[in-house]
Amino acid sequence: MSTDNWIAVDWGTTHLRTWHMNSAGDILSNRCSNQGMNSLLPDQFEAALLSLISPWLSDDHSTQVLACGMVGSRQGWLEANYNSTPCAPISQLTQVPVTDLRIEVYICPGVKQLEPADVMRGEETQIAGLLASDANFNGAVCLPGTHSKWAQINEGKISSFQTFLTGELYALLSQKSVLRHCVDCNEWDDQAFKLAILDSITKPDRVTTELFSIRAQTLITDLSAGEANARLSGLLIGLELTGAKAFSHKDGVALVGDNKLCEIYLQALTVIGVKATIHPSEQMTLKGLQLAHQQLVSGV
Amino acid sequence: MSTDNWIAVDWGTTHLRTWHMNSAGDILSNRCSNQGMNSLLPDQFEAALLSLISPWLSDDHSTQVLACGMVGSRQGWLEANYNSTPCAPISQLTQVPVTDLRIEVYICPGVKQLEPADVMRGEETQIAGLLASDANFNGAVCLPGTHSKWAQINEGKISSFQTFLTGELYALLSQKSVLRHCVDCNEWDDQAFKLAILDSITKPDRVTTELFSIRAQTLITDLSAGEANARLSGLLIGLELTGAKAFSHKDGVALVGDNKLCEIYLQALTVIGVKATIHPSEQMTLKGLQLAHQQLVSGV
Repeated sequence: MSTDNWIAVDWGTTHLRTWHMNSAGDILSNRCSNQGMNSLLPDQFEAALLSLISPWLSDDHSTQVLACGMVGSRQGWLEANYNSTPCAPISQLTQVPVTDLRIEVYICPGVKQLEPADVMRGEETQIAGLLASDANFNGAVCLPGTHSKWAQINEGKISSFQTFLTGELYALLSQKSVLRHCVDCNEWDDQAFKLAILDSITKPDRVTTELFSIRAQTLITDLSAGEANARLSGLLIGLELTGAKAFSHKDGVALVGDNKLCEIYLQALTVIGVKATIHPSEQMTLKGLQLAHQQLVSGV
Repeated sequence: MSTDNWIAVDWGTTHLRTWHMNSAGDILSNRCSNQGMNSLLPDQFEAALLSLISPWLSDDHSTQVLACGMVGSRQGWLEANYNSTPCAPISQLTQVPVTDLRIEVYICPGVKQLEPADVMRGEETQIAGLLASDANFNGAVCLPGTHSKWAQINEGKISSFQTFLTGELYALLSQKSVLRHCVDCNEWDDQAFKLAILDSITKPDRVTTELFSIRAQTLITDLSAGEANARLSGLLIGLELTGAKAFSHKDGVALVGDNKLCEIYLQALTVIGVKATIHPSEQMTLKGLQLAHQQLVSGV
């Protein structure tokens, strides 16, 4: 087992994902579990990690483990600091005390912004990965998800960012609200989606009444469950796009995330005439963690 | 037991409320249970009703029962029709077939609007009650709640209305979203509420990012749980006020609802310089059902 191998960890609220990497950044193996931050107390993190990665460890030397995500939050393993904008996406890793001598664990910092107040944990690593692939990238990055993020990149730094509750609102409304009776998350309608994007962008103040109107339309004009789903999604994403209009779109938007969700955002951006490119989040996370590992090895 | 006595019923999604009334509209007695529409199959409604009202019934004659609310929806006891705007709040009661000869049951119709699509069930009865108290009322009525309604009244008719998901969003966000960690629904801050109202009205497109910012502010600027609660409420109510600006405010707004919630809306309307009066919803419901009873007795 090479002493240069290291372990990449994406530790979020609900999942723990680990990859055994070589120094060139190739994946040798990977394992994941549902032992996310929410299911663990601080003193249970080390065991949860070892239960996945021990096959990759050696008794002869310690292996470096680079982690990002909610593992570094106040409710996580150990609170890692926040860098403040404007800042490089990753610097100043936090080392976590461990009892097992086979591992050295480091957590990537989050990023905070004082005004308007905002925080990220995990997305900064994906942005670092994007910049590692394209050092000259300048412009807007959108990371769609439960808490969708927009970030402005200038000369290798995050100059500002904003979080939108889009994905969480979609989940709550489609599964827990009165709309659960009429929305089918597995059905879709492109035209309803496009119309909803435009409605939300032109009349953002009407969004909470448009949400109820989805229910009313299924009762009195036979809106289908797929149209209702696409309309719900379109209203929320449209509201995000108009709220994020301060982020420069002139060179297009880099979308980083789950492929299916990025395709939906691509479609939404197309409606308003903005070009976008898609970058898979897992790849960006690994590139970002590799950069963190290089910083560690080179002592930057 | 007078043959002129009748029974008023407000039958919503989660509760069943009944009142024994005399012909003058005085309350003789009242009883309620949690056997709302959601907990009943269609053939269980009659028994649920009788379990509350049988002490008030006579074997010698049938007693008229006037009901409003979700009991008349597709998932209710029997689907009552919708009147279409513009229309009087109540007309054309739907009689429900029953097996017990001591009761005659009638359900008030809902109101629908085709464009923009909207529906109400129950609020039309409260509006009828408001108009019964003040036949010359013209202007805007706001009925805050889970699905907050605004209605424009012209010469005794509902000319248009709109529903906002405000109350349901508040409940989901404060109890089920990431904001549950930082919002205390029992704490409050007037200044935070007023600021949030103005933020939402001036920048409605930023609302989903302002929602996340509540969480961020508790992490990095020590926003209190009461300020967070007032800010969440203010952002959502502010969005409703700006979405409802088409409803004429020139003569003030009649607020019909739970007293505590109406006080919050009154405070919100004051921020934007609109006068409002408060009308307790239970009283308005009973006045509306009494009007329905009079229509039935007089054969209108």
